[in-house]
Amino acid sequence: MIQLPGLIDPHVHLREPGGTHKEDWDTGTQAALAGGFTMVLAMPNTQPPVMDAESLKACSTLAAQKARCDYGLYLGASQAPLSAGDLAALAPDAAGLKMYLNHTFGPLLLEDMSLWMHYFEHTPKNMPIATHAEGHTLAAVILMAQLYKRPLHLCHVSRRDEILVIREAKEKGIPITCEVTPHHLFLTEEDLPRIGNARGQVRPDLNTKADQQALWENIDVIDCFATDHAPHTLGEKDGPKPPPGFPGLETALPLLLTAAAEGRLTIEQIISRCYTNPRRIFHLPEQAETRVEIDPLAKWEIKAANTFTRCGWTPFEGMQVQGKVTRITLRGKIAYQDGRILAEPGYGMNIRKN
Amino acid sequence: MIQLPGLIDPHVHLREPGGTHKEDWDTGTQAALAGGFTMVLAMPNTQPPVMDAESLKACSTLAAQKARCDYGLYLGASQAPLSAGDLAALAPDAAGLKMYLNHTFGPLLLEDMSLWMHYFEHTPKNMPIATHAEGHTLAAVILMAQLYKRPLHLCHVSRRDEILVIREAKEKGIPITCEVTPHHLFLTEEDLPRIGNARGQVRPDLNTKADQQALWENIDVIDCFATDHAPHTLGEKDGPKPPPGFPGLETALPLLLTAAAEGRLTIEQIISRCYTNPRRIFHLPEQAETRVEIDPLAKWEIKAANTFTRCGWTPFEGMQVQGKVTRITLRGKIAYQDGRILAEPGYGMNIRKN
Repeated sequence: MIQLPGLIDPHVHLREPGGTHKEDWDTGTQAALAGGFTMVLAMPNTQPPVMDAESLKACSTLAAQKARCDYGLYLGASQAPLSAGDLAALAPDAAGLKMYLNHTFGPLLLEDMSLWMHYFEHTPKNMPIATHAEGHTLAAVILMAQLYKRPLHLCHVSRRDEILVIREAKEKGIPITCEVTPHHLFLTEEDLPRIGNARGQVRPDLNTKADQQALWENIDVIDCFATDHAPHTLGEKDGPKPPPGFPGLETALPLLLTAAAEGRLTIEQIISRCYTNPRRIFHLPEQAETRVEIDPLAKWEIKAANTFTRCGWTPFEGMQVQGKVTRITLRGKIAYQDGRILAEPGYGMNIRKN
Repeated sequence: MIQLPGLIDPHVHLREPGGTHKEDWDTGTQAALAGGFTMVLAMPNTQPPVMDAESLKACSTLAAQKARCDYGLYLGASQAPLSAGDLAALAPDAAGLKMYLNHTFGPLLLEDMSLWMHYFEHTPKNMPIATHAEGHTLAAVILMAQLYKRPLHLCHVSRRDEILVIREAKEKGIPITCEVTPHHLFLTEEDLPRIGNARGQVRPDLNTKADQQALWENIDVIDCFATDHAPHTLGEKDGPKPPPGFPGLETALPLLLTAAAEGRLTIEQIISRCYTNPRRIFHLPEQAETRVEIDPLAKWEIKAANTFTRCGWTPFEGMQVQGKVTRITLRGKIAYQDGRILAEPGYGMNIRKN
């Protein structure tokens, strides 16, 4: 048996409000617990988006009623820029500010760099900023962290040149951190024939073997593993306009534990990237009397049929993994045991509310 | 009468080798002299491109035979990266290294940021680097100047957010300089109906009035005016795949002088941006006994029929301007007078050869 702290996923899409046919705060946090996560930070690109006081409060109310694990909510930076006063007022209630800088649609897409400068100048220094920025846009937003001398978290880094730029920028003292998803660590474009091109759509894309290898070779500059859990139904994925995104909460830890069993990762690296570093980067509170118990020897096969996420599929279907969550204790109560969710809806707490 | 120093255009495409139906070293340098420029720096995206010792020597030989004004040749950074040794060996013979980072095609397009890092790390510090980088890519390459602590020149900046990022980066001490074209200062997308959509194609695009206004409002952070003289024939521009690019050498100074007559610029600003700053940025030698004489009161109409460029058209056709080059003395000899080119082919010198 191995005992881990309650793991933290700093990047999930729980789809409520607006997309509850894909996932909601109940099913999404069940998936989190089944995956070994006792805390999730939820992205703001819901319908409506979380991008002001009203939408943040509305989402917070839904989460408080249904969540089974602890959570925080991102505030989305929108094209109608929040004032410095609004940002300061909302910062205590939000897990962080999320800025979508490319490959996104709708009111949260910020292409104009003068908007970036507005947010970097006016967001309180102690409010984490996380960005979706791919390719050249990633380097561009790293410049902002340098210009405004403030921390910046880079979401789902996936390409060789991205991780090499991050390494160089970190070495030169720019205050950035980054996360990588399990699907970019364990899948490449070569898996598309198996997954199917439509189901395999995800942003950032599945990339080349060389990109994947660069992530592994630079594991020391990767601060967090984050699932970017982004469930869509099979009807949607197999339909005429397949939306990008994979579920990931229930497969992340088994994949990482399998890599550990193979000697490609250590348990300490998993703990730092799924607990210590996200806690530090996002200023997250300790969860007292919380632990995740693992059977590191249990071998099993990933099957969507056995998952809690509402979306009903996984790009890792049929993969053999080693390492299984056996029991989770969350704030003194058993929240998960042997495949059963024991935490009730509403047991989860918003980590930004005291 | 006003007397100016010999003006320098740090960004021209003279099309030879490979595109002499559009322009060559003879017609292009005639256009330069007619426009008040006694020195031009020629871009490497010829056919073949100037990207190694052999192609640099070949282009240099053509230029030496035909050029009527002084010139330098850029070395293009290619996808097959030059070694540190090659770069050091070629630096003394090149005006600078040109890096095409987006919106370009062929072997000079560098999208992978690890190639950028290679060139920033291995290019001699005293070799100017100039980049074509639009939008987010512009901010991305400014990060490189910061990471590698070396000067970087940003070509044809055209958008509001670009110039605002440049202002912020300069204020924070990053060693960048930039140039703006006359067509982005004097034209916008609103001119496209008059010019025609096909002929109006240029990279960067003609932008909005707000973009244009931001360039004028931030004239203090603009180091150079550069024409990006990029001639294509009317047959090409009006054909099925209109190539992007405008001629500019013969219209730049009259447009700038007109702005000066209107009180929007000073003669000192024209001199700093067309002479002092390009000399400093590109480490260019003094041209002894060289001057450009101007009649600042002469009013005339821009007509392609009266130009020396081979391409035979101008997007400024029919515009009324004030200020005319009357005579140019280049290294002690009259090179241009009252509409006639007096410098012979081969009189121009390569400013990097001693």
